[in-house]
Amino acid sequence: MNPDVPGKSETELIRRLREDLRRPERQQPASETRGWPKDLVDDMATIDPSGESLLWTVDMLMDGVDFESAKHAWSDIGRKAMVVNLSDCAAMAARPISALCAVALNNKLSLDDARELIRGAHEGGLRFGCPIVGGDTNSWDAPTAISITVAARPEPGRKPVCRDGARLGDRVFLTGPVGGSLLGRHMCPEPRIDTALAINRTLAPGAMIDISDGLALDLWRILEASGCGATLDAAALEAVIHPDAHRLAAVAGGTPREHALYDGEDFELIVVLPPSTGLREHERLGLVPIGQIDMAEGLFLLEADGRRIPVERRGWEHFR
Amino acid sequence: MNPDVPGKSETELIRRLREDLRRPERQQPASETRGWPKDLVDDMATIDPSGESLLWTVDMLMDGVDFESAKHAWSDIGRKAMVVNLSDCAAMAARPISALCAVALNNKLSLDDARELIRGAHEGGLRFGCPIVGGDTNSWDAPTAISITVAARPEPGRKPVCRDGARLGDRVFLTGPVGGSLLGRHMCPEPRIDTALAINRTLAPGAMIDISDGLALDLWRILEASGCGATLDAAALEAVIHPDAHRLAAVAGGTPREHALYDGEDFELIVVLPPSTGLREHERLGLVPIGQIDMAEGLFLLEADGRRIPVERRGWEHFR
Repeated sequence: MNPDVPGKSETELIRRLREDLRRPERQQPASETRGWPKDLVDDMATIDPSGESLLWTVDMLMDGVDFESAKHAWSDIGRKAMVVNLSDCAAMAARPISALCAVALNNKLSLDDARELIRGAHEGGLRFGCPIVGGDTNSWDAPTAISITVAARPEPGRKPVCRDGARLGDRVFLTGPVGGSLLGRHMCPEPRIDTALAINRTLAPGAMIDISDGLALDLWRILEASGCGATLDAAALEAVIHPDAHRLAAVAGGTPREHALYDGEDFELIVVLPPSTGLREHERLGLVPIGQIDMAEGLFLLEADGRRIPVERRGWEHFR
Repeated sequence: MNPDVPGKSETELIRRLREDLRRPERQQPASETRGWPKDLVDDMATIDPSGESLLWTVDMLMDGVDFESAKHAWSDIGRKAMVVNLSDCAAMAARPISALCAVALNNKLSLDDARELIRGAHEGGLRFGCPIVGGDTNSWDAPTAISITVAARPEPGRKPVCRDGARLGDRVFLTGPVGGSLLGRHMCPEPRIDTALAINRTLAPGAMIDISDGLALDLWRILEASGCGATLDAAALEAVIHPDAHRLAAVAGGTPREHALYDGEDFELIVVLPPSTGLREHERLGLVPIGQIDMAEGLFLLEADGRRIPVERRGWEHFR
């Protein structure tokens, strides 16, 4: 969107859309909707608010923005287009069921390229029980875009995990190291579905989100939805900085810590658990503690020397 | 797709994809799957083959292909993007429930343009009880593309209407006149949801499809899925040629009949009913008879003088 006009960030558009698209039946007190997906807030939405708890989500990937067709194999591009949606399923602790795929193919693509793209998406989904069952094929002179929609449901007897359930005293965990994904990991993300289902089955997660736009920005989203703040422990954060964050800092500038906080497309989960969660329980699931929910608002980093440094609300956003 | 290489039609891509994406559990005899949506064949697919009968569909519209942003209002473009999906719901006799919307917005769009686009889609859906409940917003330097996914379900106790149930002796109807939609009707289609639900409630439709790519091509799709052929009556066809088909023929060439057969984006329904359907029953629902299912294969037009003229399998297709 036009970058010369102020207030044109993706966040601003989504804020306006939440007003534009509000559903009358959804204007309940927050206490009644808490714990169920909220339109345009969570990683997935409810298909039928009056029916069973089927969820769905959509992501569109575009050539030159989310992938480079000159550099990446079409099957890898297709797989990524699928997996970013499966990662949203993981964030809600929902098991994916099936997918639709719509493509706008550049006219120069061969039939085989088009098949590779869609087959890559299909096979990326099949690994998690989520085949492509329909779609829409189009072509044009502009770069290729692919949009995948995935439906999913929580396990029997479980509710989906939303963004708005973080509470004072809760602890914040990651499912794996973050930062520097642009060096290549961003094209082959591993959706944390099994871990997410196990967390929702055996622990009592207050909130979860997948890191698509960066640890800082996606944790901010949990804090804003939950109406609270958090402090990350600098020493604990060091332990989850991915080696790629160090490598990328060396070639592209910035500190490894900045890459861990502000790089996007890691697709690990941020998991908020109640303080009663035992050490062995989160260790068994490979969760690494990085901080806690401890105040009314804001996100800070606590240094070893006691300084509290604000963590900016920024990361990967469209329309920057 | 590259037009210099043979076999690059949309039909060919979809034929290959049906092989690429076949689901193991779907490899049943046709007799067992008939009457339920089939992957990549019908206007909608089943979300969960083992669960309840929720259906879904996706359509992507692109600037310069399906609309002209220099000419059309953004809210009209959004509404069209929604309505082409609602028309697919009508084709299956399913009531729409909710929608997801993914956009790749050209960077020059203002925030207000973007809101108009999505609000147009939302309000187009709300008229039929189908709000947008989530989505994905992106921006890039290429033209704007919008992809909408809609979920729907048949009325209680009813099965969705598929393409493969036309049988020898059945009669073929239209819900309204066709041809020349490019003169403007293609931007404000009216999805025939109420008519479709009434047909499925009171008659016994063998097959239905909405006319997105043209009467000829979409009727061919029913014939191919059902394994039969049909003859259209030339005099009956005259009665469903839209005045716009005459106007477009006068300015753009071709005959009105050709425009009625081969123009796309009318979004009327082709309805196949058993021979036992009474005259008053189809008249009550505004259905106009145009021919019958009468042989093993092929589509023909029967002239008043008794000549049988082949109707080509062509219409609007991407990758031509």
